[in-house]
Amino acid sequence: ELGGFIEEINNVTPEYVRSFEFDSKLMPSTWIVVRIDGCHFHRFSEVHEFVKPNDDRALNLMNLCAVAVLEKFWEDIVFAYGVSDEYSFIIKKTSNLYQRRANKMVSAIVSFFTSTYVMRWNEFFPQRELKYPPSFDGRAVCYPSTEILRDYLSWRQVDCHINNQYNSCFWKLVASGKSKREAQNSLKGGQLQKKIEELAIDYNKLPVMFRQGSSVYRDKVDTVLTHEENGNSFESKGKVIVEHVDIIGPTFWLEHLNVLDE
Amino acid sequence: ELGGFIEEINNVTPEYVRSFEFDSKLMPSTWIVVRIDGCHFHRFSEVHEFVKPNDDRALNLMNLCAVAVLEKFWEDIVFAYGVSDEYSFIIKKTSNLYQRRANKMVSAIVSFFTSTYVMRWNEFFPQRELKYPPSFDGRAVCYPSTEILRDYLSWRQVDCHINNQYNSCFWKLVASGKSKREAQNSLKGGQLQKKIEELAIDYNKLPVMFRQGSSVYRDKVDTVLTHEENGNSFESKGKVIVEHVDIIGPTFWLEHLNVLDE
Amino acid sequence: ELGGFIEEINNVTPEYVRSFEFDSKLMPSTWIVVRIDGCHFHRFSEVHEFVKPNDDRALNLMNLCAVAVLEKFWEDIVFAYGVSDEYSFIIKKTSNLYQRRANKMVSAIVSFFTSTYVMRWNEFFPQRELKYPPSFDGRAVCYPSTEILRDYLSWRQVDCHINNQYNSCFWKLVASGKSKREAQNSLKGGQLQKKIEELAIDYNKLPVMFRQGSSVYRDKVDTVLTHEENGNSFESKGKVIVEHVDIIGPTFWLEHLNVLDE
Amino acid sequence: ELGGFIEEINNVTPEYVRSFEFDSKLMPSTWIVVRIDGCHFHRFSEVHEFVKPNDDRALNLMNLCAVAVLEKFWEDIVFAYGVSDEYSFIIKKTSNLYQRRANKMVSAIVSFFTSTYVMRWNEFFPQRELKYPPSFDGRAVCYPSTEILRDYLSWRQVDCHINNQYNSCFWKLVASGKSKREAQNSLKGGQLQKKIEELAIDYNKLPVMFRQGSSVYRDKVDTVLTHEENGNSFESKGKVIVEHVDIIGPTFWLEHLNVLDE
Repeated sequence: ELGGFIEEINNVTPEYVRSFEFDSKLMPSTWIVVRIDGCHFHRFSEVHEFVKPNDDRALNLMNLCAVAVLEKFWEDIVFAYGVSDEYSFIIKKTSNLYQRRANKMVSAIVSFFTSTYVMRWNEFFPQRELKYPPSFDGRAVCYPSTEILRDYLSWRQVDCHINNQYNSCFWKLVASGKSKREAQNSLKGGQLQKKIEELAIDYNKLPVMFRQGSSVYRDKVDTVLTHEENGNSFESKGKVIVEHVDIIGPTFWLEHLNVLDE
Repeated sequence: ELGGFIEEINNVTPEYVRSFEFDSKLMPSTWIVVRIDGCHFHRFSEVHEFVKPNDDRALNLMNLCAVAVLEKFWEDIVFAYGVSDEYSFIIKKTSNLYQRRANKMVSAIVSFFTSTYVMRWNEFFPQRELKYPPSFDGRAVCYPSTEILRDYLSWRQVDCHINNQYNSCFWKLVASGKSKREAQNSLKGGQLQKKIEELAIDYNKLPVMFRQGSSVYRDKVDTVLTHEENGNSFESKGKVIVEHVDIIGPTFWLEHLNVLDE
Repeated sequence: ELGGFIEEINNVTPEYVRSFEFDSKLMPSTWIVVRIDGCHFHRFSEVHEFVKPNDDRALNLMNLCAVAVLEKFWEDIVFAYGVSDEYSFIIKKTSNLYQRRANKMVSAIVSFFTSTYVMRWNEFFPQRELKYPPSFDGRAVCYPSTEILRDYLSWRQVDCHINNQYNSCFWKLVASGKSKREAQNSLKGGQLQKKIEELAIDYNKLPVMFRQGSSVYRDKVDTVLTHEENGNSFESKGKVIVEHVDIIGPTFWLEHLNVLDE
Repeated sequence: ELGGFIEEINNVTPEYVRSFEFDSKLMPSTWIVVRIDGCHFHRFSEVHEFVKPNDDRALNLMNLCAVAVLEKFWEDIVFAYGVSDEYSFIIKKTSNLYQRRANKMVSAIVSFFTSTYVMRWNEFFPQRELKYPPSFDGRAVCYPSTEILRDYLSWRQVDCHINNQYNSCFWKLVASGKSKREAQNSLKGGQLQKKIEELAIDYNKLPVMFRQGSSVYRDKVDTVLTHEENGNSFESKGKVIVEHVDIIGPTFWLEHLNVLDE
């Protein structure tokens, strides 16, 4: 029986079948951003009763997954920025992760993130079982200079800010008895800052995580000390930390030159 | 504070930042194969004490995940073939899933597969906790004709067969007291069929799942009947089933013309 | 002096510099269309006083260049279709020309076409010197099946037909004393067939080259005879011919099965 | 007749046929190098009796074509480097030529270069007719930083140097009565610098064009003056000049900061 197996496909070589595979290698010496997004998380957040407009358990679970990603891919990923159900991972210019093949790189990161999300879910939602498997999709984008990479990150943080203003107003209106449709209409085309004042939302009192998203990176200082103490010569990875800071202005980057150090 | 946010990035438009995104759209009217592979599953299978050379609990979990993928993406994925820690999903020629963007498509499928794997793990390994998050990577390949697609699937099933012969011999040798290195050396360059006879392995008695892998597809017959009964006009999805059959010869495909029906 | 040359670039290996090169290999087993278009030929045709709406000297020069391309790339290009200042070359599915690298393939074909155009110009325009160097650009598109390839060719021939109807009306109006702008306005949104009747253009009397474009391919019949006579065994290339025929309907293709023979 | 035309292809929309076209847009904000090479110029140079190892008429024709390319694409191409039958054109980071579509960009530049080569041939070879149409192929590569772009250029100039040393020795040996095969063997594996001394080649006396290739760029100085004189405000293009200089060391670039000015 088994012999027949092989004979029947004699004319087709694995080389021929493999010739259809294509390299989607990302350009060397460029920053790679792998951005992941929850698939249909609008519905997922409803089914699992997330607090609106921001559920800090859900956000902290996202952050924990991002930390896990930075720990696992510590040689390649130097920074991550997350807001809502999205996370952007910054892969350093010199990385050769999966030979920079886009599909493999994106899918491996998304898969590990997802796996961690499901495994650690009940630490954040102890009373609530997952009703169905959550999933994320991802994509990769290259940026040829640190300047444009920072423009990308600024864009995401501005988006965080605008969405948060909008959602704060929207859910305040809903809480006040309006239907979702009425709330939506009342926010159409208007200036968000004005609306915030009208609705008496003390925006700057909102938790900084909601307003500025989460930045994940390696804190180098402590680990260098440890390093000297034991006289060990392997390169320290640093502890991965989560902070909620302004990444648009220069301050953060000047104080953390090592993060995007080329 | 917030106003400053926006002003500082005035010169950078989202359009500019987004201009770096690139389409990796897969060619229309071609079969797409999304193949996923376990990341470092050699180690994962040792840590989680999989039975060697084949652990039917692990394989059945893989199969269950593949069934879940076909149920979720029922409009686009028509067939899947799995062996060991890999699975190939066949997306139909006319599919416009994620506008055929490779990164999104691959990552979404890999993510959902992973999510299901973790959520359903303890149905198959009830006494064994996951020690760390398992992950998979994926890639996409296009095939312009059904003939070449079938060559691809034949290649995977031949690979299943060869690997299974090798592993059956290897673990029999180890069971007989040889070290892994000795077992490896004794199999180098030799003809596997001869070795199988020498080692008195009754190969054809091995479970067919080990020898032929798992084929996952929709069984149309029953559902068409149901369909007629209630006079309902929406297209029936069919029940997704797992079988262990020869997909190299023409028989299976002739009996299931609908599966790769263009 | 020369030693310094080498030393200064010691740290940069050719491998590093070459790692930025990327493969743009076109999918195997698909038809490749390389389509070339005149760059700014509107102006070129005015400066060189082409007859309007169709200049048969200019078209015949294009055709001669296409024949030269088919003769040079006789192992790879099986058909070409041209109209106005554009030409589409059909490269067979099994071709491995330039390892199917798009940039090389397109540029080599465009370059040879251009070179022939300039060298042979004065055979068609004996009294008129080239005033500046004409140029063409090109692109490549893959089609996974013969059916879609024929759809592509049909699309080009329909375009030829529509443009020719439009231009026949336009230049008739201009000849009758209208300004170009008036002619344009009078044709806006109207039905071309009706306009043709109004303007008493005997459309079907126009040369068939203007109405159906030019098809270039190898005529196999004669050459097979020659072949038998001298008992030579090398594969005959066939004579490359230019015809003006309907390539939308099935007749042409049924009578020339060998052309797109897979 | 014509109506039938349209009806027959009713089911195929141009949109469908065009959906197979793909964008090969080159990454924004990166330097693009379009490198063209003579196709089979070994044979071309023999048929047209080029002087060996370097024919200055042939090189000057190449240079003239490069100057024409820089004049035509003056908004996009800022530098070119040529040696033998190859030329590299540097397209600036901010260029949006052909929306950065690789195939169009490469083919248009190659086509114009070819066209100029044929048109101007007899200025350099007045007694020698072109025996057949010469052609060139091209490719595009992106470099994310000026540093790596300069590494690319250095690599080409080193190549020029090594090839010229080799060819100088080779043709001296042939001139001394050796066969080409003997000459080739005698140079195998040896150190070129030593061979040059043995053969008493006064290498540094060879024309600098042979040793350093040709650099083509816009000379800004004069034109800025002209500019001021007439008080005209449009940006001056500068005169395109050809020089034979060291482009590996920093001197040239420091003296011509404007060339690669970002």
